[in-house]
Amino acid sequence: MSHNSFGHLFRVTTWGESHGPSIGCVVDGCPPGIWLTEADIQPWLDRRRPGQSKFTTQRQEPDQVRIQSGVFEGRTTGTPIALHIDNVDQRSKDYGPIAEAYRPGHADLTYDLKYGLRDYRGGGRSSARETACRVAAGAVARKVLGDGVRIRGALVQMGPHAIDRTRWDWDAVATNPFFSPDPEAALEWEGFLMSVRKAGSSTGAVAELWAEGVPPGLGAPIYGKLDADIAGALMSINAVKGVEIGAGFAAATLSGEENADFMHMEGDRVAFNSNHAGGILGGISTGQTVVARFAVKPTSSILTPGPSVTRAGRDTEVSTAGRHDPCVGIRAVPVGEAMLACVLADHLLRHRAQNPDAPVLPILPLPAQRT
Amino acid sequence: MSHNSFGHLFRVTTWGESHGPSIGCVVDGCPPGIWLTEADIQPWLDRRRPGQSKFTTQRQEPDQVRIQSGVFEGRTTGTPIALHIDNVDQRSKDYGPIAEAYRPGHADLTYDLKYGLRDYRGGGRSSARETACRVAAGAVARKVLGDGVRIRGALVQMGPHAIDRTRWDWDAVATNPFFSPDPEAALEWEGFLMSVRKAGSSTGAVAELWAEGVPPGLGAPIYGKLDADIAGALMSINAVKGVEIGAGFAAATLSGEENADFMHMEGDRVAFNSNHAGGILGGISTGQTVVARFAVKPTSSILTPGPSVTRAGRDTEVSTAGRHDPCVGIRAVPVGEAMLACVLADHLLRHRAQNPDAPVLPILPLPAQRT
Amino acid sequence: MSHNSFGHLFRVTTWGESHGPSIGCVVDGCPPGIWLTEADIQPWLDRRRPGQSKFTTQRQEPDQVRIQSGVFEGRTTGTPIALHIDNVDQRSKDYGPIAEAYRPGHADLTYDLKYGLRDYRGGGRSSARETACRVAAGAVARKVLGDGVRIRGALVQMGPHAIDRTRWDWDAVATNPFFSPDPEAALEWEGFLMSVRKAGSSTGAVAELWAEGVPPGLGAPIYGKLDADIAGALMSINAVKGVEIGAGFAAATLSGEENADFMHMEGDRVAFNSNHAGGILGGISTGQTVVARFAVKPTSSILTPGPSVTRAGRDTEVSTAGRHDPCVGIRAVPVGEAMLACVLADHLLRHRAQNPDAPVLPILPLPAQRT
Amino acid sequence: MSHNSFGHLFRVTTWGESHGPSIGCVVDGCPPGIWLTEADIQPWLDRRRPGQSKFTTQRQEPDQVRIQSGVFEGRTTGTPIALHIDNVDQRSKDYGPIAEAYRPGHADLTYDLKYGLRDYRGGGRSSARETACRVAAGAVARKVLGDGVRIRGALVQMGPHAIDRTRWDWDAVATNPFFSPDPEAALEWEGFLMSVRKAGSSTGAVAELWAEGVPPGLGAPIYGKLDADIAGALMSINAVKGVEIGAGFAAATLSGEENADFMHMEGDRVAFNSNHAGGILGGISTGQTVVARFAVKPTSSILTPGPSVTRAGRDTEVSTAGRHDPCVGIRAVPVGEAMLACVLADHLLRHRAQNPDAPVLPILPLPAQRT
Repeated sequence: MSHNSFGHLFRVTTWGESHGPSIGCVVDGCPPGIWLTEADIQPWLDRRRPGQSKFTTQRQEPDQVRIQSGVFEGRTTGTPIALHIDNVDQRSKDYGPIAEAYRPGHADLTYDLKYGLRDYRGGGRSSARETACRVAAGAVARKVLGDGVRIRGALVQMGPHAIDRTRWDWDAVATNPFFSPDPEAALEWEGFLMSVRKAGSSTGAVAELWAEGVPPGLGAPIYGKLDADIAGALMSINAVKGVEIGAGFAAATLSGEENADFMHMEGDRVAFNSNHAGGILGGISTGQTVVARFAVKPTSSILTPGPSVTRAGRDTEVSTAGRHDPCVGIRAVPVGEAMLACVLADHLLRHRAQNPDAPVLPILPLPAQRT
Repeated sequence: MSHNSFGHLFRVTTWGESHGPSIGCVVDGCPPGIWLTEADIQPWLDRRRPGQSKFTTQRQEPDQVRIQSGVFEGRTTGTPIALHIDNVDQRSKDYGPIAEAYRPGHADLTYDLKYGLRDYRGGGRSSARETACRVAAGAVARKVLGDGVRIRGALVQMGPHAIDRTRWDWDAVATNPFFSPDPEAALEWEGFLMSVRKAGSSTGAVAELWAEGVPPGLGAPIYGKLDADIAGALMSINAVKGVEIGAGFAAATLSGEENADFMHMEGDRVAFNSNHAGGILGGISTGQTVVARFAVKPTSSILTPGPSVTRAGRDTEVSTAGRHDPCVGIRAVPVGEAMLACVLADHLLRHRAQNPDAPVLPILPLPAQRT
Repeated sequence: MSHNSFGHLFRVTTWGESHGPSIGCVVDGCPPGIWLTEADIQPWLDRRRPGQSKFTTQRQEPDQVRIQSGVFEGRTTGTPIALHIDNVDQRSKDYGPIAEAYRPGHADLTYDLKYGLRDYRGGGRSSARETACRVAAGAVARKVLGDGVRIRGALVQMGPHAIDRTRWDWDAVATNPFFSPDPEAALEWEGFLMSVRKAGSSTGAVAELWAEGVPPGLGAPIYGKLDADIAGALMSINAVKGVEIGAGFAAATLSGEENADFMHMEGDRVAFNSNHAGGILGGISTGQTVVARFAVKPTSSILTPGPSVTRAGRDTEVSTAGRHDPCVGIRAVPVGEAMLACVLADHLLRHRAQNPDAPVLPILPLPAQRT
Repeated sequence: MSHNSFGHLFRVTTWGESHGPSIGCVVDGCPPGIWLTEADIQPWLDRRRPGQSKFTTQRQEPDQVRIQSGVFEGRTTGTPIALHIDNVDQRSKDYGPIAEAYRPGHADLTYDLKYGLRDYRGGGRSSARETACRVAAGAVARKVLGDGVRIRGALVQMGPHAIDRTRWDWDAVATNPFFSPDPEAALEWEGFLMSVRKAGSSTGAVAELWAEGVPPGLGAPIYGKLDADIAGALMSINAVKGVEIGAGFAAATLSGEENADFMHMEGDRVAFNSNHAGGILGGISTGQTVVARFAVKPTSSILTPGPSVTRAGRDTEVSTAGRHDPCVGIRAVPVGEAMLACVLADHLLRHRAQNPDAPVLPILPLPAQRT
């Protein structure tokens, strides 16, 4: 069972609420002997950290991670790794309205429906603050995967504005506050997002993830499929409403010949002519780049007032002032990377459990391709 | 762990290959006292059964289900329900080529990469034949959910041809061989698919699922989210490359106001003004109709020859003659329904385990709306 | 969740009732490439099979196993292995009394209390017939463990009559109908059990299991301890009421010095001076022989009438005529071996998932010792 | 998977080492709306806390628990409850010898064999310090079970000295430092344990647990048996080598008539004439008192020097000075209670998931009886 745990052999359990004293996670099943310090985790947390540009919430959280267990003399011991992050900037606030009125698009109503009560301060458990724990766990997962596997993410669409894929430049991602691989799109988004914020509105986005160097053979035939686990992992991120692997929904429009990733030999290795499959066939990695995308809905917290209801069953109007990202899709990029890293680390362990001497036929991976 | 099992409390384990003596599943955790006979399961299997129109494979499989355990005097006993289906039409065939050459888009290569060997007859374990077991389990899941929950599916796009949603008519679904809710689209698809088949090609599709009457409160906050489990379940179906909940990828293009499902009171119940969320907020069902869509890639088996490689590492050309669906998306509709039913049954049991006395605030569900 | 499943990576799911058409199991997670035919499984089933001596039930079941999936051209493929056994000798019988009256010591009452109904024919799901599936799965587990691991069981006590451990002879086990390693005890038991049977009574027993050649490092620190999993596995066998590892309850009477398994070097390997730990320290295998014992209560089905109650809440008297083992502990020996094999196979896979390059210090195992 | 997690629906994950900054656990799946404060947990921790009598280790740990999440305004919210305990008295010490030499009976060797490295300070993860987390989780489990279920434990044997069961007095348990229900035995043990300690030795013990008021129907037929889960849970406690349910190993010596728990009606309820079954039939609770016992080996840390080996493969001699319990069985009593509480809470949730409207026939429980 897994209300708050994720993965099987590389297993992450998170806990904590937006306005409690701290949040954290337990990473169980990590192989021993891996060099790991807080400095390996912090940079990934810093990428997700709020308050870094005018386009994200101004809540000031240092998100300083502390390793509480599972590491000895700088190396993992194979026992559970507890990672803690203190909540620092729980601005004192009158939660009266939020306690009574259900914010549209938020989990306020459904938590009450499920549990009969909820921690309403800042969204409680449903706050995106929880995703810091995912990023911390993802940093450990990256260490498990090793340097041969490279996981990167980018924002490829903001509201109706998609990037131009011919301008894709991974180096550009770190140079703008949107993780955009297209510098020109970043400029466009800057203006767009300013106007969205001024209008007291918000916008959705689409992010894309690449995992290069994934060994072939990860995944399992039926209910342990690599793509199924990736889909579940990404859909579990706050505000995500859609997930694609490889060509995704576009594959529906293609003919069999167009969609086929034909193969040929390059020397003694297999090469694919394209990567519509997104690096996964029959639920198992091919050795090509694993490509996934996910859609993030616009931030539900908006200044524009809208009709809603109260806990007591009265009509009301809600507008959410406060510290919010106008586009939560931006900070979802490092979270998506982390979830992909966790899924891959889990499947790496699962694979070698069943198939310690696996591969037979070497694969030559081509760069990820969209169409 | 779950290579071949699915669900937690309502748990399905499937087994069997395309050309073995039989296939089947074990449904564990089913509540006791439910009236269940083979006649409750067979109709759902018949909907998925091949050979029913000229637009699906001509393999003749009666798919007759036999209950082997877990039912006594017509009612479930709470012990595991074993459901068996004999493979009947394993046409004798020379598997030499398929054993040696990797069919593009199929799992031939990846099974070899993962396991070092594979049952190559008809795709072995990776054959869509396995989905019959999902449908059988889904029939049991429907009984668990009871008559109050109605799960239906339809094909909303074939290749580039989408339905006109204003013509949506659930009654039409049973009147054409495509599960189309739009009779005019069905006519169009008939011509399109004939030409695809004649060209030795194949096409992709998009299916949509509705679950009406889902009680509020199903799901769990973080890694047990209802939408995350639905996404994983649908992505685990053969050939699926994308999954959406509610507005899905379209949500990315919307503003916060457009995407918000505002609420108001109707008498003493809560009503939503729209359903972009697809019936799920914060991973928990709202009581609105749960809406999901999934994209199916074009059938990988095509007559058109294309370049590939052999097990021995030589270049070759592959064209897949034989009995294949030109659009596997069609028969994926009942499979998607079954997976959704299984996810909901599992979450119903999970919910009442933790929250036996749950709901506090009644919800008035509106019909599902796209936008 | 695991009502009817067992193990994590080497995962067994069983199904079937005493008087249904068939019983069976699904073995998931078995590594690929292992040579496996029905002939590898049948001998183990034959050892457990009823009707082989006058000291076991006369129900005639050939217990012929059929592999339905997961094996191709004689080798496992890594996909689920379905094993089926037909029920043959469901003697027609009037179940009226058993349907109404609760047999003391049986699960009749508790199944009704839990589920509100039950398959009362021959005990239904609670029948020891289910253990045939465990033995079949255990045969696969032995193949996973390989020839280097040898798992054997023996009966060391029947009623109040224990063996003389100084006469322990593994070769004797196959030469008497009791799996006794002490031929003289076997003779004594023969007379004792005849008198028990004539008296319409039954008797309990204690069985002991040895697993030699278990690699060091299997198990996990806290809740995945090898001994904890063995204890749960053995206690899950019908009629078992106690489980010991190594010195077991006798350890409670010892001093620290007496109980310590001191170590010394033999060449470049570590040797233990004794094996009170039963081959497990801190939940992890040492490389010594794993030793476990379990106590089986006397068969609950006895001819002697005793007071009980009916389903309708009336006092009654029950005496169970029919085909029963006077000492179910005998046939529990092969079942115990199978469960131990399954636990070890599961932990072998779990271990190499986390620690593929594990051992550092070689261990020289000594023969298993009691004190 | 569950290296460091325990339970399915009431799920506990622990983390932390003996000499790290803190230890803790995450309790997931706890029903919402339960009143819970640190004051509900602390008393149970205090019972287990070291340094309370001269018969336990003198390590001074306040074991002050802090709730970090999952509780809001005094009540559980249904989200994960993180419980933290700081390590305070990590006495500075030269760990050189312990880092190099393997202490007999400890997990030093096996951790190195499994992981290739270990946190050797105070036993690291294998330290009994981890059991504080179990006790904290058990306190939450007791709240889930409610006041109707009473779980108590007692020490019934120390070394070779068993209590006289005719003197059993639950009130006595709190009046002596051994949790003995027999005041005279407590006096005897005091002298015995003083001499053991003076001799630099240690001794084993047997503990007994009672759970009164357990609802009938908890457990599941085959691999989810209540007794199997109890056996695994108790065997997972440090130093435990044997587990019994009800009559346990003594059942092996009985005849069917002696062991049978005959039944009769008392008014409109069922009563048992005895409780050899320990409150469990067919893996399912009967409504009688659940009775379990477990054997604890003598503390492995003894002053008496004994032969061992070093990490480098040399013969050496080890004697463990320091702060140790001469009889770890004493403090295992509250740990055993906690584990039993966790198992029962988990099965309560599992039961109502599958059987929300379960019971049909009321049961009148008799007090637990041994023979």
